[in-house]
Amino acid sequence: MRAAVMHHAGDVRIETVPDPVIQQPTDAVVRVVAGCICGSDLWPYASMAASETARRMGHEFVGVVEETGAEVSGVAVGDFVIAPFVASDGTCDFCREGLQTSCRHGAHWGGANDGGQGDRVRVPQADGTLVVVPAGFDQALIPSLLALSDVMSTGYHAAVTGGVAPGKSVTVIGDGAVGLSAVLSAKLLGAERIILMGRHQARTDLGREFGATDVVAERGDDGIARVTELTGGDGTHVVLEAVGLKPALETAFAIVRDGGVISRVGAPQYSGVPFGFGGFLRNVTLTGGVAPARAYIPTLLPLVLDGTIEPGRVFDRTVDLDGVPDGYRAMADREALKVLVRP
Amino acid sequence: MRAAVMHHAGDVRIETVPDPVIQQPTDAVVRVVAGCICGSDLWPYASMAASETARRMGHEFVGVVEETGAEVSGVAVGDFVIAPFVASDGTCDFCREGLQTSCRHGAHWGGANDGGQGDRVRVPQADGTLVVVPAGFDQALIPSLLALSDVMSTGYHAAVTGGVAPGKSVTVIGDGAVGLSAVLSAKLLGAERIILMGRHQARTDLGREFGATDVVAERGDDGIARVTELTGGDGTHVVLEAVGLKPALETAFAIVRDGGVISRVGAPQYSGVPFGFGGFLRNVTLTGGVAPARAYIPTLLPLVLDGTIEPGRVFDRTVDLDGVPDGYRAMADREALKVLVRP
Repeated sequence: MRAAVMHHAGDVRIETVPDPVIQQPTDAVVRVVAGCICGSDLWPYASMAASETARRMGHEFVGVVEETGAEVSGVAVGDFVIAPFVASDGTCDFCREGLQTSCRHGAHWGGANDGGQGDRVRVPQADGTLVVVPAGFDQALIPSLLALSDVMSTGYHAAVTGGVAPGKSVTVIGDGAVGLSAVLSAKLLGAERIILMGRHQARTDLGREFGATDVVAERGDDGIARVTELTGGDGTHVVLEAVGLKPALETAFAIVRDGGVISRVGAPQYSGVPFGFGGFLRNVTLTGGVAPARAYIPTLLPLVLDGTIEPGRVFDRTVDLDGVPDGYRAMADREALKVLVRP
Repeated sequence: MRAAVMHHAGDVRIETVPDPVIQQPTDAVVRVVAGCICGSDLWPYASMAASETARRMGHEFVGVVEETGAEVSGVAVGDFVIAPFVASDGTCDFCREGLQTSCRHGAHWGGANDGGQGDRVRVPQADGTLVVVPAGFDQALIPSLLALSDVMSTGYHAAVTGGVAPGKSVTVIGDGAVGLSAVLSAKLLGAERIILMGRHQARTDLGREFGATDVVAERGDDGIARVTELTGGDGTHVVLEAVGLKPALETAFAIVRDGGVISRVGAPQYSGVPFGFGGFLRNVTLTGGVAPARAYIPTLLPLVLDGTIEPGRVFDRTVDLDGVPDGYRAMADREALKVLVRP
């Protein structure tokens, strides 16, 4: 089969790789119907050294089950499934608590394993990992189903762990696919005011359609001043940080209301957090983390199927496998917000 | 009247200062029946420069109302009251939310204001600030009533914001008065397992009486290894950090279970928190902060009055005002855990 392989920064190739086969009785093989490129894929695309081992790419996909191991009972050949971005057994204590990203038998896509940017994927722990979409759904929903694999569930994780609820004011930092999904999630959870910080108008326009009540295009001190002004000097109860860079986190601390919560879902590209005596005196909480998408898909899937939410609108370009390398370039150049891949 | 004044590190004196008078119609004057020395008083005692302005000391006290301003209606002359360690109006949005430490008209004791280590205190916002103890209580309860002013409420804040509940495992870092209060609070909130990290046996013995199920005397990597071993490699659901130094916080991150919560109530003596990609992947939450004691006193006071809790046991020495300078020395030398002052 064919799949995307990253060799080093800026060098993604479509190559012929071994067809996946059932290795464990708990495995399934899924034919990818739609995958995509993630904002986090852009980190190695910007920085991977040539000396590193080439890696398979893609951790988001939906598709059709083609084969199952002897112990798989929850999914069957022919099922259309959503794969969250981490595999999990569904039975360990962390999985039962809804923290499947810490599963005691979890696995990641890509690297030495199959990735979602390819024809097929061997799925470990298929029963725990995959969520079956009821047959007969509208094929036009595929982008939104795919969004549940990562970005929408990640935005939802931000909003849930941030404690978004009716009456809460929320700022979302970042107008990427996760930031926009966080806006949609905050709206879903009843936030009355949602300030979106982003400077790409096509994206912030979509953010307004998703529920943003205010858009702040300024960054840094100017952005902080603008949010402070919009909130009467107090900041917002919740800040959802969907960037992962230190300046975004610094902004979050500056615009969160006393007693408020910063939930971060942008993978941190920093090690130290500026959270000493000042944030302590103000009783600020820092939460969030990598999203256990598997925990949220059962909640979000019905909302996609009945049209309540349309998170797939974050995809603004579709390519086939041969188009993947240019898809990386387009996302890196911010020419595309998020690229959907149909092998 | 007489009161404690700190001039610089190691130099606390008892001096004659102006008698407090009603300045605002919302003020009261309270005669101090019992005050105390706080662990946080030891920071300036260790580091205050001679060039700094001398400051009045003490932010914890209980006493009797001697005079009230024209607009004070909630407390009356003769009432025995508990003063939380921050004054608050009781009516602003933060106060109504239970975050009186962020009160829009709050004030602190000590510095240029009266402090609890003295004969009398002018209390701003008396109606919002003071909590009246019903008349007729047993005078032997005074140390426990005094503990509600700060340490017990601070330990309780740690446990509440840390989400301690039945079924949760908890580690408390620090065997000072706040750490021991955190143990007592975790027990009160139903924690089944409470690991106390501390190396002063008289203190950890009291910690066991307060509810600690395990004591870990080791620090640093050895302490981390021991807690890890005690928890089957997982760490505890909640870590209550009652020290305020960076190594304690580093330990907290190392021993918190995936998806767990670190609640810190030790005033941070650091600016950067080591909370990057690792803690993000593990979905760790960092919360806590300066405790709104005023919010918790109504909950804890009945438990003191009916003997359910006896937080005053953290006081292991009593002095009069003239004994305050030596009380600082004794606490700094770890000869005393916490010194109660009876003017």
